[in-house]
Order: sequence, then C-alpha cells, then structure tokens
Amino acid sequence: MIPPMVSASTSPAGSVGYVETQYLDLPKPVQLDCGQELHPIRVAYETYGTLSPERDNVILVCHALSGDAHAAGFSKTPPQASTRDGFGAADRDGSAGSGLGWWDGMIGPGKAFDTDRFFVVATNLLGGCSGTTGPSSIDPATGKPYGSGFPVITVADMVRTERAFLDVLGIERLAAVAGGSLGGMQALQWAILFPDQVDAIVVIASTHALHPQGVAWNAIARNAIMGDPAWQGGHYYGTGRAPDAGMGVARMVGHVTYLSAPALDGKFGRRLQFADDIRYTIAEPEFEVESYLRHQADSFVKRFDANTYLFTSRALTYFDLARQHGGGSLARALEPVSARTLLIAFSSDWLYPPSASEEIEEALRALGKPVEFQVIEAPYGHDCFLLEEARQTPLIRHFLAER
Amino acid sequence: MIPPMVSASTSPAGSVGYVETQYLDLPKPVQLDCGQELHPIRVAYETYGTLSPERDNVILVCHALSGDAHAAGFSKTPPQASTRDGFGAADRDGSAGSGLGWWDGMIGPGKAFDTDRFFVVATNLLGGCSGTTGPSSIDPATGKPYGSGFPVITVADMVRTERAFLDVLGIERLAAVAGGSLGGMQALQWAILFPDQVDAIVVIASTHALHPQGVAWNAIARNAIMGDPAWQGGHYYGTGRAPDAGMGVARMVGHVTYLSAPALDGKFGRRLQFADDIRYTIAEPEFEVESYLRHQADSFVKRFDANTYLFTSRALTYFDLARQHGGGSLARALEPVSARTLLIAFSSDWLYPPSASEEIEEALRALGKPVEFQVIEAPYGHDCFLLEEARQTPLIRHFLAER
Repeated sequence: MIPPMVSASTSPAGSVGYVETQYLDLPKPVQLDCGQELHPIRVAYETYGTLSPERDNVILVCHALSGDAHAAGFSKTPPQASTRDGFGAADRDGSAGSGLGWWDGMIGPGKAFDTDRFFVVATNLLGGCSGTTGPSSIDPATGKPYGSGFPVITVADMVRTERAFLDVLGIERLAAVAGGSLGGMQALQWAILFPDQVDAIVVIASTHALHPQGVAWNAIARNAIMGDPAWQGGHYYGTGRAPDAGMGVARMVGHVTYLSAPALDGKFGRRLQFADDIRYTIAEPEFEVESYLRHQADSFVKRFDANTYLFTSRALTYFDLARQHGGGSLARALEPVSARTLLIAFSSDWLYPPSASEEIEEALRALGKPVEFQVIEAPYGHDCFLLEEARQTPLIRHFLAER
Repeated sequence: MIPPMVSASTSPAGSVGYVETQYLDLPKPVQLDCGQELHPIRVAYETYGTLSPERDNVILVCHALSGDAHAAGFSKTPPQASTRDGFGAADRDGSAGSGLGWWDGMIGPGKAFDTDRFFVVATNLLGGCSGTTGPSSIDPATGKPYGSGFPVITVADMVRTERAFLDVLGIERLAAVAGGSLGGMQALQWAILFPDQVDAIVVIASTHALHPQGVAWNAIARNAIMGDPAWQGGHYYGTGRAPDAGMGVARMVGHVTYLSAPALDGKFGRRLQFADDIRYTIAEPEFEVESYLRHQADSFVKRFDANTYLFTSRALTYFDLARQHGGGSLARALEPVSARTLLIAFSSDWLYPPSASEEIEEALRALGKPVEFQVIEAPYGHDCFLLEEARQTPLIRHFLAER
C-alpha cells in the first residue's frame, strides 16, 4: 500500500531527473468545512529525494491556483503541445503540457528545497484536475462527474486532505510546508490546524486574506466562466462543449494580475503585431500584448478544468485566518502556531503585496513567535515566486539550515 | 437649421437646470482614418450657457468610454431605473438612466466650466449609443444596423466629427476643449489636428497613449464581449439577444481598473453579504464587493450597447500621438500645438497614471509651449476625474481665467 519512498532518479546535475506522478486513494472520508464528508478521495502526488529512517526530513510543497503535483523534474509522460514561450512563469504554475515541473528551479539537489537533504512531497490539491479528486471526478452517488455539485471546499479542506494523505504514507511530522500564493495559504493553514506536526513554514507571495481587489478579480474570473453558456450550470462534462471562452477570459484576467504593469511594458510595450501600422480591426489582435493574452488563454483552456478553477478560486477568496480562527483578530488566529515562519514577498506583487506578509510578521512577532520576513525587489509582479529562484534560494536554504 | 443657442434654464442654484438632448445631422460625410467616408452622421448634443455675440466663449466637453451628451443639468427625459448607489463615479460616466449629467459638478453657473461665462457644448461621440451615429445605427447601404460592420474609428475620427458638428453650429474657434480619460485624448487630438482653432485644452486623467496593461484590460473586455455567443459576430440587433454576460464581465473589469485597491478596501473591505458567515457557494456573491460588481454589470448592460463598447475601446487603445503624428516621437507629435494646456492627474490613478501626463508636460515644456500640470492627491483611482470636483474646480477656473 505504501508507495516507494524514492521515486526520482537524479540524472542531470541539479535536477531530480525523470519523475512519474503517482496516485493514492485515501482510506477514510475527509470531513469538510461545509459540513459534508467527501469519499472517495484520490490524491495525485510526486516525491523527490529520500525519506530519512527517522521520517523527519519531509517537506510538503503546495501549489497555486492552476498547478499540479508535478513540481520538479521531467515528466515521464510525453509532453503535450508545449505552452511555454520563454517568458511567463504563469506558464509554469501548472506544468501539465510541459515536461518540467512548475517549481523545478527550487526543488532538487543543491536547490532551495534540497533533495540531497529533504524528502520533498508535492500533491495536486483537493478539487484539482490533475489526478486528485475534484469536480471532474465521478460522484459515487450518481455515477456521473460532480460538476458544480462538488462540495464547496476551503483551504483548510485542502490541508486536511494533505494530512490524511501523509498519514497513509506514514509521515507524521513535517520539517516544513512551503508554497507560493494559494500554496502559501496552505502552509499557513497547516501551521494553525496542525501546530504540533509542522516545524517550519515557508510562505511566499501569499497572504492571510486576499484584499478586496483580489476578491474582485477572482469574482470576475468566475463570472466569466459561469456566464459562458457552455458551462451549462457546471455540468458540461461529456457534452462535447466546455466554457472555453469564459475560461480564456478568466485566464487573461489572472495573467495580467500576476504581472506588473512595468513588466508588461518592458516585455511588450505598445508594439503592434504588424509593425507597419494598425489594421483597423476590432476582432483581431493588433498589439503584441493582445496576441500574447490570447495565446495564454488558448493554451490554458486545453490543460485546465473550468470547474476546478471555480472551486479553487472560491477557496482562496474565502481564506481569511482572522475570520476563520481569530474572531476577526489575526493575532488570535496565529496564537496556536509553533512553526518557525519564513515569509517572502516581492516588491512589485500587487496581487499579494508585501504589506499582507508584513501583517503576518507583525502579528507573529507580537506573539513572540520566530518569524523572518524578506522582501525581494523584483519587477515581475506576483509571478516572481516562480521566476526569482536565484534570490529566493539562499533565503530558503539558510532558513531551513537553522532547524 | 441652427438650433437655439440657449438650451438650458437655470433653476436650482449652481445648476444649468433642466436640459434636453438635441440632435443634428451633418450635411457632409466625415473622412475617417481607415479610409472610409461615413454618411449620414447624426450627432446628439447638449449646450449650457449662452453663446457670446463674438462666438468666442465656446468650451467643448468630451466624454469618456461610456458617457453621453448629457453632461450637466437634469434630464427632461424621465429617469429610468437609477443605477446610482451613492458610491461610484462609474455610475456617472454615463448618465443615461439617471437624471443628472455625468459632469454636473463641473459644469454650471460658478462651477469649473462656468456657464455664466462660457457656452459649453457636449456631444455624444462618434460610434456612441446615445444618439450619435454608431454601430446600432442603420447602415444606408443595407437598411440594417451596422453592427460589427461599422467602420473602425479612431479618436481623430471622433474629433473630426465634432469639428464638422461645430461647423454647422457656426462655431469656428473653441475657447477650450476639455475632457477626462478618453475625453482628454480628444482634447489632445483637437490641439494637434486643429491648432489654430483651439485656445486651450484641459486634459484630465488622460494620456498620450495607453500603457500596455491598459491595452490588456481593454483587450480582455472586448474578448469577453466577442466571446459571448449572443454577440453573434456583432449582428445581435433585433435578435432578442445581446451579449449581456460578456458586457457584464467587461464592465466589471473596467470598474475595478477605474478604482484604486485602497478605495475598494475602504468601501467594502472583506465584508460578507451575510454577516454571520460564508454560505459555501460558487454561484452566488458572498462578499459585498462581489455583489457590487454584479450590480454594476447588470445596470450597465441595460443602458449601453456592446458594439459601441468594442469600437470605443478599440479607438482608445489605438490612440498614440507619437505613433500617429510624430514618427514615434511625442515631442514631434506635439509640435503643432498652440493651445495653452492644463494637465490634471490623480495620484491613485493606475489606469491613467500621473507619469503619462508628466510625459506630455515635459514634451510641451521642451517645445516652449505654455503648459501647467497638477497632480491631485486623492484615493479613488481613475474615477477621481468624476469625483474630485472640489479640487479640480479652482485649478480649472484659474486656468480658464488666464486667457
């Protein structure tokens, strides 16, 4: 039942090598915040490095909105049509369709999450569409995909699922939980729900509660999907139609919020598709940035499920530690935390701004908890957490060496 | 043929009183940038104040993306269901559906554009949906609405139409052209196309060329509309269906870009619709800001035509003075300008940031042209141009008194 603990060879230098996503069925239902129990649950996961005999070197890596379990190394699955164009980290926050893991620059021998030392585990989150049970999975009660009937999940539900998954692997304690964006939310949630089982958390480009503008962007994305008639009330599986137009718009909105205005300016400026002049068209892209957005939308809809986008987006807007755990007080919510905390934010990230991490730092510090907060000056916006590997690496390695 | 020059009574103090939108058919075709000639063209307009015998006191006021000719006073047309909720200026950038003009706080006796002194003229722009010829107008060649067959227009085409309209009114010179956002683009375009006929321009919260992120937001909005199957390739008139879902998403995107993140935070925070707790729903609004956006979308689609949104949005992304008139150089583009220039920007406006106005100021100053640039510290983002009447008024009054 327990899968092999060493799953990745280490062929190219600094890489975990070729990996294969594995799958595990949880033996028991997971109790959800909404009051429902969910069963069965399958979890897709990958592991990198070697579990120590004491089982005390485990790092759980949590992915962001559109990611998956393939965090590092080269997929053994033949890559589908690549969505990479050399620019955007947004292409990497989900790796399906490309061979390289979405955080490959951070996980491997000698890297930030050093697989010479740590046993790194990555799962696809609850509600996902890359192997873990989600809206596209079969509801045993009906024999059909859940669709919009999937229970409305929270970040805490994702974390409870990860906890249940690690139980099956026989892993009780975590040396660290780490993630960016929604992944950072999961790390924070771990430290509150299971304080005695987490030694450290690495929370990157994240927050204790998304600000109202971020809530608004997410609402727009969900409205775009649900307003697409092909969504069909969430039951589009098997109909031959999917809300690709709405998903495309959702992805475009997300994409622009992941980048900074100066990054867009530096990459595209106002350059036209056809350098000679405008062509007087409303239907076709005229500017390079317009064409780029369409390309991002087109490739995203091929690899990602619209309902997973809806449920995951909803979960990250719900996430609010003060409301959930502190009766409105962030300090009270963080009281149970015993993990050492590393917070990293990026100066140009306007979706998860440094101020949000600073609020966490201040609350933890006031409680006398060990916390370190680093702001990296970098121009690429929220996507920095996937791009700025070189500057995150020494901070994380140093933090993890202290334990 | 020439309509009455005094069209508004002045009943409430400081108000131009009750007004009625008037209509005028241009006698000749307008030559468009795309190469086509457009005929016939009807222009919807309102006037406030009294034309001087010398016809030298005319201010043309130009509206933004979703505005109309009803800039000041109370509409004699009974107001439709009001979209006003007391917060957003965005409700006022088009006044249809509410009795009060979209810039009523700025136009009237003793106001910024003082109707005791000036004869203020406001038109609905070319391509509009509030009385001026646009995509919903009948194409004489087919006897059906133009739809997406309407010629792809530019800001210069809007200005040429305004020029032709004023010709009919017998107005040769303008004491000033004024506007915010797309309205400010028109003012700049006037000063370049007709330098000998414009004494001054007042350019508020505007730019010489939208930055790439702004181009991206507009592309997303247009994609949302055109991706709605109810758009039907742009020929939805008379079908009983319109791309309301796509337009709603477009409006939500616009709305968030018009406001600043702190303004959204101050107005809504993360307050829930139902204060007790979340309700675990993806389909229904949970946060006040989500509900607000839906309300904005719902009321906008009732009053605004989707094709007008597409053509106007395209025109404002095309607008690029350096490309159009300077071979890539803003300074060269501004060389013909002889109008005195007042530029006003708002500190929190991230869609039309102060830096854009500063570039115009520096270029004009280097050319030795008279220019004044004021940045108003205010938190409401791009919407400030509709909200910050009290602080704009003395700047504009002082500037206009200098002539």
